[in-house]
Amino acid sequence: MTKKLLLLTTGGTIASVASADGLRPGESGAELLKTLGSLPFDVTVKDILEMDSSNIQPEEWTLIAQEIYQARNDYDGIIVSHGTDTMAYTASMLTFMLENINLPVVLTGSQVPINIPLSDAPDNLNLAFTAATKCEPGVYLAFNRKVMRGCRSVKVRTTSFDAFESVNFPLIAQVTSDGFQILQPQPKRHGDYKLNTAIDTNVSLVKLFPGFDPSLLHAMADNGCHGIVIEAYGLGGMTFIRRNLVAAVGKLIRNGIPVIAASQCLYERSDLTKYEVGQQALLEGAISAHDMTSECAITKLMWGLGQGMDIAAISKFFNTDVAGEVTL
Amino acid sequence: MTKKLLLLTTGGTIASVASADGLRPGESGAELLKTLGSLPFDVTVKDILEMDSSNIQPEEWTLIAQEIYQARNDYDGIIVSHGTDTMAYTASMLTFMLENINLPVVLTGSQVPINIPLSDAPDNLNLAFTAATKCEPGVYLAFNRKVMRGCRSVKVRTTSFDAFESVNFPLIAQVTSDGFQILQPQPKRHGDYKLNTAIDTNVSLVKLFPGFDPSLLHAMADNGCHGIVIEAYGLGGMTFIRRNLVAAVGKLIRNGIPVIAASQCLYERSDLTKYEVGQQALLEGAISAHDMTSECAITKLMWGLGQGMDIAAISKFFNTDVAGEVTL
Repeated sequence: MTKKLLLLTTGGTIASVASADGLRPGESGAELLKTLGSLPFDVTVKDILEMDSSNIQPEEWTLIAQEIYQARNDYDGIIVSHGTDTMAYTASMLTFMLENINLPVVLTGSQVPINIPLSDAPDNLNLAFTAATKCEPGVYLAFNRKVMRGCRSVKVRTTSFDAFESVNFPLIAQVTSDGFQILQPQPKRHGDYKLNTAIDTNVSLVKLFPGFDPSLLHAMADNGCHGIVIEAYGLGGMTFIRRNLVAAVGKLIRNGIPVIAASQCLYERSDLTKYEVGQQALLEGAISAHDMTSECAITKLMWGLGQGMDIAAISKFFNTDVAGEVTL
Repeated sequence: MTKKLLLLTTGGTIASVASADGLRPGESGAELLKTLGSLPFDVTVKDILEMDSSNIQPEEWTLIAQEIYQARNDYDGIIVSHGTDTMAYTASMLTFMLENINLPVVLTGSQVPINIPLSDAPDNLNLAFTAATKCEPGVYLAFNRKVMRGCRSVKVRTTSFDAFESVNFPLIAQVTSDGFQILQPQPKRHGDYKLNTAIDTNVSLVKLFPGFDPSLLHAMADNGCHGIVIEAYGLGGMTFIRRNLVAAVGKLIRNGIPVIAASQCLYERSDLTKYEVGQQALLEGAISAHDMTSECAITKLMWGLGQGMDIAAISKFFNTDVAGEVTL
């Protein structure tokens, strides 16, 4: 039976056209599809946004999640075309907003607009369509012959076609001369498919550098920040001599503001137990992001706070693998 | 003639020993050297610090730079042992503080303490000693059989021996079965060797995420921040709908605070000219970091501000390749 697929378009480079102000989204989903020629699927197109993904924000996450949830009983899979700049953030947040999702949702985009010769857009779209018919239920990102778990993907290159990497987790599927190959199973679902878009966007993401003034953390708290992800050094080390970041973190935590310690290293895990500079932070109550990406840690924090979780609940939540986003 | 080398030790994992609070620096330089057995060099050891590099800050940069400059006429090369967590920041800052350096300075460290069997420390130290005798004058980082330009190096892995990458620039040298091979020349020097440690540490490094509140930039300025590096999206895109970051950047710039637009993608260049979301920021006066690492951009900004540069001078400085840190 012909698979029924839904293409939700949101803009992005893939749909961009030249303007006096530089490239900006302009092509419709119907135009994107036309470029692919005839497809062996029954595809419905819905243009829901027309934005550069640098402008895609929590309000758009909610809209996209709602559109996906609304279509849950009418399709075999959903493709979301999206700008590359924030695609990894959207993929991570959709993972949390669409708990126990019942079909594959595949985000894709391109580094070159589809109407430019030799663009990577047709390949990426075709890959996303195939992934949306073959992968298990879940949120994915398809790009450059690779299918990644959405909550593990990171944009690591600004111009190459190979823009995304699956960080700290193997690829879910890939295209080789043998065709489309599934490489990894998805985690088992426990429970019903639920849409839950309640998030708290009053969070901060801090990347440490030598000389970082810890008083900035307090300024953030005074500014109404409810939770902080710190991209600390290496395994999660934080300065405690002179500029005492560890003490500042402790004060935040005692004031009910959860602090997540991630690593500014792209690859591999954070582990606060190994060095004194990590253990001090751990003693103050810092919560480890383990091997989560920063994109995933900040969206997981927003979602957790949006559910009304307090520090203890956030700590438990970050030590739980919800949808394959963390290795524990 | 036997080469005269100076080993400056600062602590780090390489010199760490177990303590009740986790690993912390403890071994002396003499002990590090003992592990290597007899060396074909005349090595002088000076222990200048004993710190985890998560605690190495601008004050230590100044000290290290002074020690290096002081030794300028007495040695053929200098090795600095250093923790891996902030080694890339130190390497970048030394590049600016030690203008037109007259000898090779090679930073190294390890992922495992030297007194643990199978540690990577002896290999890395041996590599650094060789690089300090064979490379042209300049600041380098030597790790896992690779020698990188210091201002291009980034710690990308938290636990693997292959912890560092040379980002957006080829390796300077490597070790293969053919031995030590120089792969890239250093940029030509123009002028005298000068020590210049005047820096302004009142800077901020901001990594964007969807939902980022632009008012935080103003809070930073009110907090006494004199310059900001923004890790924007992709080629340097910034949100301008609803949370208008571009407008906030424009306001900062009109108030005399330079804003550098870098990319949160690890690899490849930022380029504000291509998309509307970059052009808007460019129109407001944002300065591109081009293909510089964030580690290099933030240290270059501190150094430039420390020299009393205003926005126009900072802009010119960021469009100048000082020591091979940027491709223009």
